[in-house]
Amino acid sequence: MNWPVDKKVLALCGGVGGAKLALGLTRVLSPHQLTIVVNTGDDFEHFGLPICPDLDTVTYTLAGVSNRELGWGRENDSWNCLDTLEQLGAETWFRLGDRDLAIHLARRAMTDGGDSLSDATSKICRKLGVDHPVSPMTDEAVRTRVYTDTGELSFQHYFVREQCQPVVRGFHFAGADEALPAPAFSRALEDAATAAIIICPSNPFVSIDPLLALAGIRARLKACAAPVLAVSPVIGISAIKGPTTKMMTELGMDLSSVGVFRHYGDLLDGFVIDTTDRSLVPEFPDPGRIHCCNTLMNSLEERVELAKECLNFALQWSPPKAYT
Amino acid sequence: MNWPVDKKVLALCGGVGGAKLALGLTRVLSPHQLTIVVNTGDDFEHFGLPICPDLDTVTYTLAGVSNRELGWGRENDSWNCLDTLEQLGAETWFRLGDRDLAIHLARRAMTDGGDSLSDATSKICRKLGVDHPVSPMTDEAVRTRVYTDTGELSFQHYFVREQCQPVVRGFHFAGADEALPAPAFSRALEDAATAAIIICPSNPFVSIDPLLALAGIRARLKACAAPVLAVSPVIGISAIKGPTTKMMTELGMDLSSVGVFRHYGDLLDGFVIDTTDRSLVPEFPDPGRIHCCNTLMNSLEERVELAKECLNFALQWSPPKAYT
Repeated sequence: MNWPVDKKVLALCGGVGGAKLALGLTRVLSPHQLTIVVNTGDDFEHFGLPICPDLDTVTYTLAGVSNRELGWGRENDSWNCLDTLEQLGAETWFRLGDRDLAIHLARRAMTDGGDSLSDATSKICRKLGVDHPVSPMTDEAVRTRVYTDTGELSFQHYFVREQCQPVVRGFHFAGADEALPAPAFSRALEDAATAAIIICPSNPFVSIDPLLALAGIRARLKACAAPVLAVSPVIGISAIKGPTTKMMTELGMDLSSVGVFRHYGDLLDGFVIDTTDRSLVPEFPDPGRIHCCNTLMNSLEERVELAKECLNFALQWSPPKAYT
Repeated sequence: MNWPVDKKVLALCGGVGGAKLALGLTRVLSPHQLTIVVNTGDDFEHFGLPICPDLDTVTYTLAGVSNRELGWGRENDSWNCLDTLEQLGAETWFRLGDRDLAIHLARRAMTDGGDSLSDATSKICRKLGVDHPVSPMTDEAVRTRVYTDTGELSFQHYFVREQCQPVVRGFHFAGADEALPAPAFSRALEDAATAAIIICPSNPFVSIDPLLALAGIRARLKACAAPVLAVSPVIGISAIKGPTTKMMTELGMDLSSVGVFRHYGDLLDGFVIDTTDRSLVPEFPDPGRIHCCNTLMNSLEERVELAKECLNFALQWSPPKAYT
């Protein structure tokens, strides 16, 4: 890795898949070189507590306390509160572990005390030993709404309660039009040292699109001198995790990494796909912008490797795209 | 026991000590014969959740799931959330067990959904198999404030965080002047079948006085045909549980059941003291209104016995006091 010490990276991500690459990036870049901006369109209030599923997945992953078996929540958690909620006839479709609950309670106390979501996230990260800056995409409320064949649903109702069963017709990110990006997100976009913007292999529709829907973000990404690169969450015709391919099918999209690329449109300077999809390269509008490597991230080593591949790929635009 | 099947009892109580007599009463009276009204001056909001310590102690006690070792919370609880809150640097002075947390979350969901505290309490009781009606003293916010040598404190800050260490100068029940009694409390006061009002052996200052401070309650208790009886929480010069005698000393009161009686003033028609305090009877303003029996309630049998003693004592005013 020859990544220059004075160059910075902005990573955009959602939950599980994105968190894996974010973890890889933290092993290659210093806390001063990396800003991780996380989707908050999944956020909702439950039992009066602010729940931030993607932020927490990223935080837990970087802190080394994520529940790898479940793909969400904390490792070694217990379920005594949830079992009792069931006894009390309360809603239990959103599975809150006893240890996981603490982050929501602590966040509620912090925001009640006047902290922004950015502040609260920083404090929680510090307490969990996460040195690399993690930021919500915005400190304001943006809520992903899912249009389905059976009506409009809030994201967690669609995703967790209905387990993605309803057929998707589209998405809406309520509040995104007016929501300003969080301070760390804005700073990274304006920072002349930012030399790569990496869209992690997260679900394009519900993890990345909310972030791109924030006021002015698409224009600011295009105006940024740093190349915008994305890693395909689709390998072959299956997404590594989650309902990406089901959504693509229901939305009538080309079910491959080519479909993902087209979805992002002219936002991308480069696109990273899995080696097994190498035969697809001629199908991309601009095959020169495609980089093939292993994008499966089953081990920490693979996460670090993919991070290095992305950074090396970004160096192709050095000096930055605006000056090439 | 000759308690008439068509006669009802209204019990007023706080937490631990009061809950024991309330439990005894439930073993002697049917759900139609008993209304248990509980202090909510201790209530507070913590991490955005409505915490009702006395209501929950009574509910857990009647449901048979109270933590008898600690004197609060649920039996067989775990502390994984609290341990994690500590890791996250959040406040942990109020010890929330994992199972105990569920009642606060469920109550928050219910009140967010439009339920009054009375509604939520009824639903929770039903789910926990508590058949006897338990009601908060009011559905409105009344908050006990403690005037101490080191300044004014909210009740839980004084009671739990400061562990009753500051010297007490007085109490204030914020909101009580305007708070209406809860529907079940009001109904019991107006019910012609109510033939005994029993003030359980709870702390007079912080468990019973908030309840008596509600708009119009003292006048309504005096106007009620049923006798108002209290069980002394003080035996000899020590209170069974909690800081009652410390408060009495700091408030310059006579440190005995006589002091408790004087505190309630002319509200009481009868007063139940422990047999070991029999020698004090001549010191009471009206010895004829004093009943001596065992008031220690270490076993369920003793709770039931004390309940029977109170009811038999109340029968002295049958026909009711207004007609004698």
